[in-house]
Amino acid sequence: MSETPTQRAADRAIHPITETVLATLSGCGDARMKEIMSALIRHVHAFAEEVQLTGDEWRRGIDFLTRTGKKCDGIRQEFILLSDTLGLSIMLDAIHRKQDVTGSATENSLLGPFYREGAHDEAYGANIARTEGEPALFRGRLVDESGKPVPNALIEVWETANNGMYEGQDPDQPESNLRGRFRSGPNGEYAFRSIKPTPYPIPTDGPVGQMLLAVGRHPMRPAHVHFLIQAPGYETITTALYSADDRYVESDAVFGVKASLIVEYVKNDSAADAKEWDLPRPFFDVQRDFVLVRSRDVAR
Amino acid sequence: MSETPTQRAADRAIHPITETVLATLSGCGDARMKEIMSALIRHVHAFAEEVQLTGDEWRRGIDFLTRTGKKCDGIRQEFILLSDTLGLSIMLDAIHRKQDVTGSATENSLLGPFYREGAHDEAYGANIARTEGEPALFRGRLVDESGKPVPNALIEVWETANNGMYEGQDPDQPESNLRGRFRSGPNGEYAFRSIKPTPYPIPTDGPVGQMLLAVGRHPMRPAHVHFLIQAPGYETITTALYSADDRYVESDAVFGVKASLIVEYVKNDSAADAKEWDLPRPFFDVQRDFVLVRSRDVAR
Repeated sequence: MSETPTQRAADRAIHPITETVLATLSGCGDARMKEIMSALIRHVHAFAEEVQLTGDEWRRGIDFLTRTGKKCDGIRQEFILLSDTLGLSIMLDAIHRKQDVTGSATENSLLGPFYREGAHDEAYGANIARTEGEPALFRGRLVDESGKPVPNALIEVWETANNGMYEGQDPDQPESNLRGRFRSGPNGEYAFRSIKPTPYPIPTDGPVGQMLLAVGRHPMRPAHVHFLIQAPGYETITTALYSADDRYVESDAVFGVKASLIVEYVKNDSAADAKEWDLPRPFFDVQRDFVLVRSRDVAR
Repeated sequence: MSETPTQRAADRAIHPITETVLATLSGCGDARMKEIMSALIRHVHAFAEEVQLTGDEWRRGIDFLTRTGKKCDGIRQEFILLSDTLGLSIMLDAIHRKQDVTGSATENSLLGPFYREGAHDEAYGANIARTEGEPALFRGRLVDESGKPVPNALIEVWETANNGMYEGQDPDQPESNLRGRFRSGPNGEYAFRSIKPTPYPIPTDGPVGQMLLAVGRHPMRPAHVHFLIQAPGYETITTALYSADDRYVESDAVFGVKASLIVEYVKNDSAADAKEWDLPRPFFDVQRDFVLVRSRDVAR
């Protein structure tokens, strides 16, 4: 059997201890488990060897992981925060998005920890802002990849109040503030009124916050509005629209921003529009279509 | 600037998302922290991409890490157990041992979680077994790399009782059972009486135990006696002697066994020896020297 140079290089790179540990997986009856554990062991060992990890650094790592586990409870999930801040969460999105969709489809972003089920059903154009802020109108159409409207899709939206907190985090906000469920109309159209969102820090009072501080990173997410869009026969879209003028739009602490998801908050000073939408002049006018992909189970 | 093929391959392998995440470390003022975090991010991303990790597998991973953190308390350290069972702990030993010692020196093994300070001082040849077992005599010399005796070194030993538990784990064992502190004599000699140790499982009632089960690995450590040897002017040795006839000696769950640390429990049926050591006939006679290395701070 001849090997390629790459295979030979890969073989050479494996430490004898790594070989020994990998050999213990020979009795693993679950092929996928074996594949994942093998890769994990190889990368953990290669990491330690590459940086020549010291005992003291290892102890700090053990302590970090332990404190991260201890910080988790029913609400707070510090390991997901770690995955988000190390870019692993968005990497998974990239891996699977690549398999699922074609070029024109709306890109995914992170669901984040603040999605809550049970938002109220709201009518087309309803205002979901029950606290102060700069008025904004969000509107557009849901279409498929050929441009055909997708009617009657379920659209859930949620965003932070001016204090940087979601309603679910903040007992001082009215119930259902800045979140709601909408349905697209016969031509795929949607619209709702709300406020321009604000940037906010991810939780910094735990190990992940300390890690960001230690490596000189800020904890801010740029302002954004979350969208979760579901329609029978289509892949669900978990995404967000990011504000082009936000100072953190190019340095999102959790890497959720994609260029295609950045939108302009255009000032609309039209008296007719202000009257139609019952908004003060000028208001921010965000126009954005979403392109859904037929689900694989149905049409592929 | 020209690159080697290996460098080019490494460059090609980096995902654009990985590049983005690595770029956030540009403000890190701690060069070592930056090096470690960069390698960590590269390996975590490469792992996910290589196995095409699914969202469900990621969630199971997050859950595993969270439960591992929750399992840790003042006594139990499940992340160290994870490090041990994935072979990371022994890999660290290999990395640093390589830097510290030359060929003839006694190899390290794992300290393990059962070392306790404050063992009693015992005389040359003392019997530390306060529970039943097969009588064994351990004896030999401490020498330096040139064969010169190392007198007055501190030698701490500890091992499991017949039930597979260390005294510190088991309220039913007498205080100081199967552990003690000895000093080497003028010619570097040491000796103590005890019992032949037994194999035992690492703790299996947590996430690490579940992981071993899932990949078809057993949780057993082969029988061994721990040694911690300290002498002024020498590097401390943390090691263990493993029983050659143990069924797990080639499949230690935490990879602590090294060929040079395997010893024969030789049956000694000499009436004179039995009388000299006040042991029944026959007893196990384990003869083993330890080779210490001058500490770098003193003599190098």
